[in-house]
Amino acid sequence: MFTGLCAFPLTPFHHEKIDFHAFEKLIGNLKQANVESICAMGSTGLYPYLSRDELVKVTESSVGIAGDTPVMVGIGSLRTYDVLKNAEAAQQAGAKALLLAPVSYHPLHDAEVFGLYEKVTAEISIPLCIYENPGVTQFSFSDELYRQVTQLPNVGAIKIPGMPFGDNNANGKIRLSSLRNIVPEHVAIGVSGDKFGALGMHAGCDLWLSVLGGLFPNTVRTMIASSQSTSPQAAIAQSERLTPLWDLFARNKGGMRVMATAAAILGYTEANCLPHPLQPLQGEDKQKLEAILTQLSLD
Amino acid sequence: MFTGLCAFPLTPFHHEKIDFHAFEKLIGNLKQANVESICAMGSTGLYPYLSRDELVKVTESSVGIAGDTPVMVGIGSLRTYDVLKNAEAAQQAGAKALLLAPVSYHPLHDAEVFGLYEKVTAEISIPLCIYENPGVTQFSFSDELYRQVTQLPNVGAIKIPGMPFGDNNANGKIRLSSLRNIVPEHVAIGVSGDKFGALGMHAGCDLWLSVLGGLFPNTVRTMIASSQSTSPQAAIAQSERLTPLWDLFARNKGGMRVMATAAAILGYTEANCLPHPLQPLQGEDKQKLEAILTQLSLD
Repeated sequence: MFTGLCAFPLTPFHHEKIDFHAFEKLIGNLKQANVESICAMGSTGLYPYLSRDELVKVTESSVGIAGDTPVMVGIGSLRTYDVLKNAEAAQQAGAKALLLAPVSYHPLHDAEVFGLYEKVTAEISIPLCIYENPGVTQFSFSDELYRQVTQLPNVGAIKIPGMPFGDNNANGKIRLSSLRNIVPEHVAIGVSGDKFGALGMHAGCDLWLSVLGGLFPNTVRTMIASSQSTSPQAAIAQSERLTPLWDLFARNKGGMRVMATAAAILGYTEANCLPHPLQPLQGEDKQKLEAILTQLSLD
Repeated sequence: MFTGLCAFPLTPFHHEKIDFHAFEKLIGNLKQANVESICAMGSTGLYPYLSRDELVKVTESSVGIAGDTPVMVGIGSLRTYDVLKNAEAAQQAGAKALLLAPVSYHPLHDAEVFGLYEKVTAEISIPLCIYENPGVTQFSFSDELYRQVTQLPNVGAIKIPGMPFGDNNANGKIRLSSLRNIVPEHVAIGVSGDKFGALGMHAGCDLWLSVLGGLFPNTVRTMIASSQSTSPQAAIAQSERLTPLWDLFARNKGGMRVMATAAAILGYTEANCLPHPLQPLQGEDKQKLEAILTQLSLD
């Protein structure tokens, strides 16, 4: 399942409760676009904000609508005890893969992160995607740690943060080449950070784990197809056209608030679809997003 | 209650469950030392790792043993909804104050943090301590935000991170003087970051919120008394004597793992008193800590 587009939709809220009606519309849109897989409850899907009961309900809702499109579920939590409970619940609810970041309050040491993956991979029966996102976990994987954790059983993929993949000296290209030598062949390498997705796929990443694709799957699928062709110029040009959007992502500490606002503008969700204290874009940033959605034909 | 030493004990674990027997010994030690207040479930007390049921039980246990020593309780959580539930539960269980950091997975914006404190302070009936700890929350308070949040009702104190308070040009001294002009007089300013505690108290902080004091309350109380006297040299010298300990704190991303290991060495807790994936000190760091505990007479 770790190829092409793995789409990361929102988990929309309304008055502090999950808005399943809106969520089902979001999943239906992804199903219709024939995405390769869906990650319900990635970072944009707010997995650490959900109770286990909510995690089960969102998993069941996703799997019900996604049908034969495989659904991955984020299971990260501060205590390994809860990660294991989440893993069990997600598997029972029909998840086909699990996404696990080294979630922390007290930032973790390498040995603690290895211990987490060791315990979890020993207990699961579906593939795990190891998820590096230092912006939310304050943890970066060394090459040596990647070597260790990808040798554990049931590891199917790693999700690396976005990095410049452009030319031969770009750090993303160097990192990807280094990881290819370290990571076993059966473990897919996925790119995240949508700004870097098109070039990451062209540089040889196996899949694009995409927040943008959680709302605009056709746009990302088209870019992936072009990225993987012998003439990736169209994908690179499209990614450059989206620069105003990447700038909004950067100014808003990632894509989550931007996509939540876009989903509301497009009528998928209520005007404010985030749980407090999180807030959608306001003022100038919201106006910029409205202009972007009007000018660029995202779908 | 926001004067002198506010002691931050561990919440010790054994086999992934709270070890109430060990916890009661830790609280008993603080009670015996006549600390001015106890913060059960600060960062070192692992508040974000606990379920609401655990928060209630730890609060009840603390209050039962602390008697007339006031107990503050950490209520932070990712969703405001849960923070409010925690606040209600902690108040009902006998807490005399609440500690609230802007806990995040997606790092927060200023407006979101203000919104959090606005909602929470409107619903509580005991004082709140606003807790800045960028090392765990990835959020720093601007002076303007401090001005806004300390005007909210029920705010009793702010807990600022440790900074050099040594001479007139040190940034801690400048910040403290700036905050004194911004923060209403009834709001206490507390120093954390034990390395900076002695000089922070000498520079005029109202209280020292101390991880070291959660295990060694007499040591910290003696330093506070000297810091606030006309001849603070003894406190400054004692803080300098503790440099090997501050170095261990820095190498281990804060004092939590160091104090958990010290508590085990001293027989308060089981050898590993942290919930997985957190780990106590190992190898060389553990040996260094054993040497420190032997050489320095902490109590």
